[in-house]
Amino acid sequence: MSITHPAGFRASGVAAGLKSTGARDVALVVNDGPQHDSASVFTANRCQANPVLWSREVVKDGVVRAVVLNSGGANCYTGPEGFQTTHAVAERVAQHVGIGAGDVVVCSTGLIGLTNPRETVLAGVDDAHAALSAEGGEQAAEAIMTTDSVSKQVVVEGAGWSIGGMAKGAGMLAPQLATMLVVLTTDAVVPAADLDGALRAATRVSFDRLDSDGCMSTNDTVTVMASGASGITPSLPDFTEALTRACTDLAMQLLADAEGADHEIAITVLNAASEDDAVEVGRSIARSNLFKAAVFGKDPNWGRVLASVGTTQAAFDPADLDVAMNGVWVCRNSTPAEDPAGVDLSAREVSVTVDLKAGAHRATVWTNDLTHAYVHENSAYSS
Amino acid sequence: MSITHPAGFRASGVAAGLKSTGARDVALVVNDGPQHDSASVFTANRCQANPVLWSREVVKDGVVRAVVLNSGGANCYTGPEGFQTTHAVAERVAQHVGIGAGDVVVCSTGLIGLTNPRETVLAGVDDAHAALSAEGGEQAAEAIMTTDSVSKQVVVEGAGWSIGGMAKGAGMLAPQLATMLVVLTTDAVVPAADLDGALRAATRVSFDRLDSDGCMSTNDTVTVMASGASGITPSLPDFTEALTRACTDLAMQLLADAEGADHEIAITVLNAASEDDAVEVGRSIARSNLFKAAVFGKDPNWGRVLASVGTTQAAFDPADLDVAMNGVWVCRNSTPAEDPAGVDLSAREVSVTVDLKAGAHRATVWTNDLTHAYVHENSAYSS
Repeated sequence: MSITHPAGFRASGVAAGLKSTGARDVALVVNDGPQHDSASVFTANRCQANPVLWSREVVKDGVVRAVVLNSGGANCYTGPEGFQTTHAVAERVAQHVGIGAGDVVVCSTGLIGLTNPRETVLAGVDDAHAALSAEGGEQAAEAIMTTDSVSKQVVVEGAGWSIGGMAKGAGMLAPQLATMLVVLTTDAVVPAADLDGALRAATRVSFDRLDSDGCMSTNDTVTVMASGASGITPSLPDFTEALTRACTDLAMQLLADAEGADHEIAITVLNAASEDDAVEVGRSIARSNLFKAAVFGKDPNWGRVLASVGTTQAAFDPADLDVAMNGVWVCRNSTPAEDPAGVDLSAREVSVTVDLKAGAHRATVWTNDLTHAYVHENSAYSS
Repeated sequence: MSITHPAGFRASGVAAGLKSTGARDVALVVNDGPQHDSASVFTANRCQANPVLWSREVVKDGVVRAVVLNSGGANCYTGPEGFQTTHAVAERVAQHVGIGAGDVVVCSTGLIGLTNPRETVLAGVDDAHAALSAEGGEQAAEAIMTTDSVSKQVVVEGAGWSIGGMAKGAGMLAPQLATMLVVLTTDAVVPAADLDGALRAATRVSFDRLDSDGCMSTNDTVTVMASGASGITPSLPDFTEALTRACTDLAMQLLADAEGADHEIAITVLNAASEDDAVEVGRSIARSNLFKAAVFGKDPNWGRVLASVGTTQAAFDPADLDVAMNGVWVCRNSTPAEDPAGVDLSAREVSVTVDLKAGAHRATVWTNDLTHAYVHENSAYSS
C-alpha cells in the first residue's frame, strides 16, 4: 500500500552511503504517464534549501515527471556548490529517464550547512534508477526517513482510481531538522490547475495544521503527480476529498511518530468568527510550552490554555470562554466549572476544546506535548 | 538598596498565610508624597486577571498613592467573587492610609483559577499596613516572590534624586505561572505624562525584550511612582536614561534567575531595516525550541538560527545572512564560515549575533535555553 499502488508509477529506495548507518538514503519516484500533471507546495520559510529553490522553478509549468529525494543532508546553506549538486542530481535523473531536468523535483532532508559529496549522491541516483520497479514504493518510503521510527504510507481508493502517498518527518520536530517531505501519486486524470487547488485544500487542513513544536523547516515539500493511467476523470470534489483523506492520514502518522512525544494533542476551536480565527487560536495553544509541558505532566491546566488564547487577535470576549479537556468542561464563562480531577490525561491521545462563542467556524490543530525526551533529542544529538 | 531608598516611600512585606510555606506573601508600598504622579504598563494578554482589570482603571488619571501586591494566587478567572476581592483589598488599603480606593494599584501572582480566601487577604493587608516603614523595601521584595530563588532589587542614583525598584518573575517562565511584577519608586519630581513616556521607553528595551519562554502572563504589571520628595526635577532624558538602567538591571536579574535555565542568551540583531525588524527577528530566535534546546546541549547550531530568521517578515536577503555565536562568525553570506568547533557554549552567558545587512537598526532580545529542568518544573508541579 504505497506510492506505487496507483497505475503508472515506478519507485525505488537505495543506500548511497549518505547516512553513516548504511540505511537507504536516496529515493526516486517516476511518473510513466500517460499524463504528467503535478502540483507542489513548499515551506513558507524564507530561508530555503537548494532543492526547494530548484524545485519551485520546476513545478511552475505544472509538469513533473520524477521526484528524487535524499536523506542524510538538507543541502541548505551549503553555498553555490550545494546548488550545483541539486542541479547535477536533477540532470542525472533526467538523463537516465530520458526527460528534461526541468521536469525533475529534488527534495533533501538532514542537517543544514552540511555538504553531501556530489559523486556519492550521483552514484546513489544511478543505483536508484537501476532499481526502479512497480513494487518499489515501500523502499522509497524507507529511504526518505531520518529520525522517523517507521515509514509512513497511505492508499486511498476511488472509483476505479486511487491515490498513494509517502511522508517523513513532522515539521521540524525531530533532531537533525527532520523536515517534512511528502510525495503523493494518483492514476486519476486530473489537470494541473485542478491538482494545485486540490493539493492546497488538502494540505491546508492537514499538514498545515500539524504544529509539533512551532518550528518551520527550510526544506518542507509536498508534491502530487497524476499519471492518468486509470483513464478516469473523477469530479474535482471527489478527488479533493480523497486527497484530503490521504494527507490527513499521513499527517496523523507523522503526529503519532513525533520524536520524544508522550501525547498527541488535538486542539479544536469552536464557534469562531472565521476559520482563520479558529486556526490562530488553535496554533497559539499548540505552541505554548507551558501548555504542552502541563500535558506531559498530565495536568489539566486550563489557565495556560486561556493565557494562550489571550495572545491572539481572534474575536472573543475574555470573560466568556469555555474550555474542555478530554470532554470535561473545566472552565465555563471563563470561570472554574467541572472538577479538573475528572480529567484523565494518562492515555496518549488528548483533546482540548475551546469555545470562542463568536461565530460558527471551527478548526483543529494538532501538536505533541513537551517532554524530557524532546529536550534530550534536540540537545544531545544535534551536532 | 530597595524601593524605600528614594525619599517619600514606606513599604512592608508580611505573611498572610496565602502561601502554604508561611513565607511572606503580601507587600505594600505607599507614596507619602508630596507628589503622587505615576505610570503603569500591563500585560498585552487579552485574558487579564482581576487585579489588572482593576488597576488599569486606577492608573488612568496618573495618580497612584499605593501599590498592594500578593503572591499565592493570581486572582484570574476566579469569577465575580475574585473581582470583589480585588476591590475589597483596594478599599482596605485606602481606608488604612486615608486615601481613595481609586488611587490604589493591586497586583497578584500565582495560579490562574485559584480563589484566595478574602478574609485571609484582608488580614494580610491589615498586617502589611501596620508594618509599613522606610526600611521595609527588602521585605516587600520578598513578599512578591513565587518561584524566584532570590529577591530582585535595584537602586540607580541621579544628581540628588534616585530610583528604587523591585521585581519578580520572568514572563511566565516558572511554574505556577510566575507573572512579572515590578514596582519602581523615585523621589525625583516627574509629572505623570513624562513618567508615562519614560516608563514606556524603559520597558520597551528591557522587560519587553525578555522572552524566556514565549508565554505572556495574564497578570504582568509594571508601576512607577514619583514622590517628588527630593525637590529636584531632572531633565526628561536624564530621568528616562536612569529609569531604563533600573529596568534593564532588574530584567537581567529576572533572566539570571529563570527557573530551570542553564544559559542566559543575548540575541543581537544588527543592521536591520528598522528596530521593529530587529526585534521581530530576535524574538523569533528567542522562541525557537530547537535553537534553545541546542544551546542547552552546547551545540552551536546556526542552521536553527537561520530557520527562525526565515519565518519573519523582516527585510533581508536569505542568501546573505551572517551569524556569530559567542563572537565566532560560523556563517557568512548564508554559508558555513568559521569552524563551529571554536564556539565554547559551556559558560552560562551566550551571545548570538545576526547581521541582516538591510539597514542601520539593532536590538537585543534575551532568553534562556530549553532544559530538562524547565520541562520538569512546568509539568511536575503545576497543579
